[in-house]
Amino acid sequence: MEKQDLLYEGKAKRLYETDTPGLLWVEYKDEATAFNGEKKDVLKGKGELNNVISSLLFEKLTSLGIRNHFEKKISETEQLVHKTTIIPLEVVVRNVVAGSLKKRTGIPEGTEVDVPVVEFYYKDDELGDPLINDDHIRLLHAAEPAQTIEMRKLALEVNDALQRHFDECELILVDFKLEFGTTEDGTILLSDEISPDTCRLWDKTTREKFDKDLFRYGLGSLQDGYTEILKRLGGTIHG
Amino acid sequence: MEKQDLLYEGKAKRLYETDTPGLLWVEYKDEATAFNGEKKDVLKGKGELNNVISSLLFEKLTSLGIRNHFEKKISETEQLVHKTTIIPLEVVVRNVVAGSLKKRTGIPEGTEVDVPVVEFYYKDDELGDPLINDDHIRLLHAAEPAQTIEMRKLALEVNDALQRHFDECELILVDFKLEFGTTEDGTILLSDEISPDTCRLWDKTTREKFDKDLFRYGLGSLQDGYTEILKRLGGTIHG
Ligand SMILES: Nc1ncnc2c1ncn2[C@@H]1O[C@H](COP(=O)(O)OP(=O)(O)O)[C@@H](O)[C@H]1O
Ligand SMILES: Nc1ncnc2c1ncn2[C@@H]1O[C@H](COP(=O)(O)OP(=O)(O)O)[C@@H](O)[C@H]1O
Ligand SMILES: [Mg+2]
Ligand SMILES: [Mg+2]
Repeated sequence: MEKQDLLYEGKAKRLYETDTPGLLWVEYKDEATAFNGEKKDVLKGKGELNNVISSLLFEKLTSLGIRNHFEKKISETEQLVHKTTIIPLEVVVRNVVAGSLKKRTGIPEGTEVDVPVVEFYYKDDELGDPLINDDHIRLLHAAEPAQTIEMRKLALEVNDALQRHFDECELILVDFKLEFGTTEDGTILLSDEISPDTCRLWDKTTREKFDKDLFRYGLGSLQDGYTEILKRLGGTIHG
Repeated sequence: MEKQDLLYEGKAKRLYETDTPGLLWVEYKDEATAFNGEKKDVLKGKGELNNVISSLLFEKLTSLGIRNHFEKKISETEQLVHKTTIIPLEVVVRNVVAGSLKKRTGIPEGTEVDVPVVEFYYKDDELGDPLINDDHIRLLHAAEPAQTIEMRKLALEVNDALQRHFDECELILVDFKLEFGTTEDGTILLSDEISPDTCRLWDKTTREKFDKDLFRYGLGSLQDGYTEILKRLGGTIHG
């Protein structure tokens, strides 16, 4: 497998074409951003931690029959994925109130949500990734109504799987963000990453935060938190 | 009919109990507020214009079989309405892009929306009336899922009726906000007001604005705009 032209550089990853059509080479970066790019830093080791964790979680989902873009990990900071046409929506699932859900509803952080809440955000940095509803999705032609229903269903399936998995690792899956893409035959495929950058994960007992909120709110070392998550997932780096 | 205790004073209206249980006495005020109370003024004559316009529009809806809380106009600034338990949601219907829909989606103001867009906002001044989705409505217990579906259906019916009516008056109904309440038997009843404070109305040909945006963005005399709307609806004041 050979890394070819840079296809896209985002805030957290670089995507390259490969010599195999339909396969992309993903490099996880050490850059951290929050609040739509207002807060920025380079956190050594973040790319590695996210790449390893994301690889483990995609493998777990695959083993449970939840199809996704992940092909394989090729180094501590790199993985191969199947290329999709990303649907410009961030699909968020929430089990416990935190972050913008607290701000939006006034419900205190830490409140358990009896039925998971699904939210769609329009993936547009200039607009600040606003919350949108099904009518906005249709208006923006961001997705077909049937695709929106399908993404919601898939997101809830991923939630069931990950919530159970993290629970076994003594972690609470508070909320997370997914991105979906379409393959050439039109199938919707889970894409992007699943990492402590895109999930809120708390200790099951103490509710200590191990995710990107450490960086967002300056609560402690991000690398320490992510390393703890990796450890609980049974993974290692430099291994 | 006798006006009794003040039940509630909001930003635009005062509601009083009457000697008839279930009937409320509504006084429309001259106070104008915008941007969640950040901008404020007293605009002489606004209460009168809104009361007369709202009365005409509720009568129009009643004549078309769309049930609502309106009983009758009792003076230039007052009307009688049926008391409801207000559902804490603002239901917005949009036919043309303007205001927050432009900001949220990046679609230019004035763009026609092929299928009307319905939005639910959580009626909470402290939270700034945030946009919410069906899952948030459930989480907040703001309305039952069946009520949400019913409000959406009713709002679209009101839109059909008002859009046609305003069109005959050479006005474009760009968007509007409704509030619904429940009666004692649990029925959902259209409540609150329908006025240039709660609708965007543009001239059909020139697209001149005649609504509260005149005040919001300091574009001209609010009273002149509202008077033009009243005239086109075939109404008069001091009549
Ligand atoms: N399988 C895939 N095929 C094509 N693009 C993908 C795939 N998975 C993720 N992407 C896209 O890769 C880009 C880079 O990721 P990232 O650095 O996280 O970007 P962002 O700054 O948008 O968060 C994103 O636009 C993401 O949607
Ligand atoms: N039929 C009704 N029964 C009870 N309350 C009503 C009815 N119609 C409107 N209201 C409520 O009257 C209050 C006063 O109106 P307004 O001054 O416009 O308030 P706001 O500051 O919330 O916009 C609002 O809370 C509105 O929901
Ligand atoms: Mg990203
Ligand atoms: Mg009001």
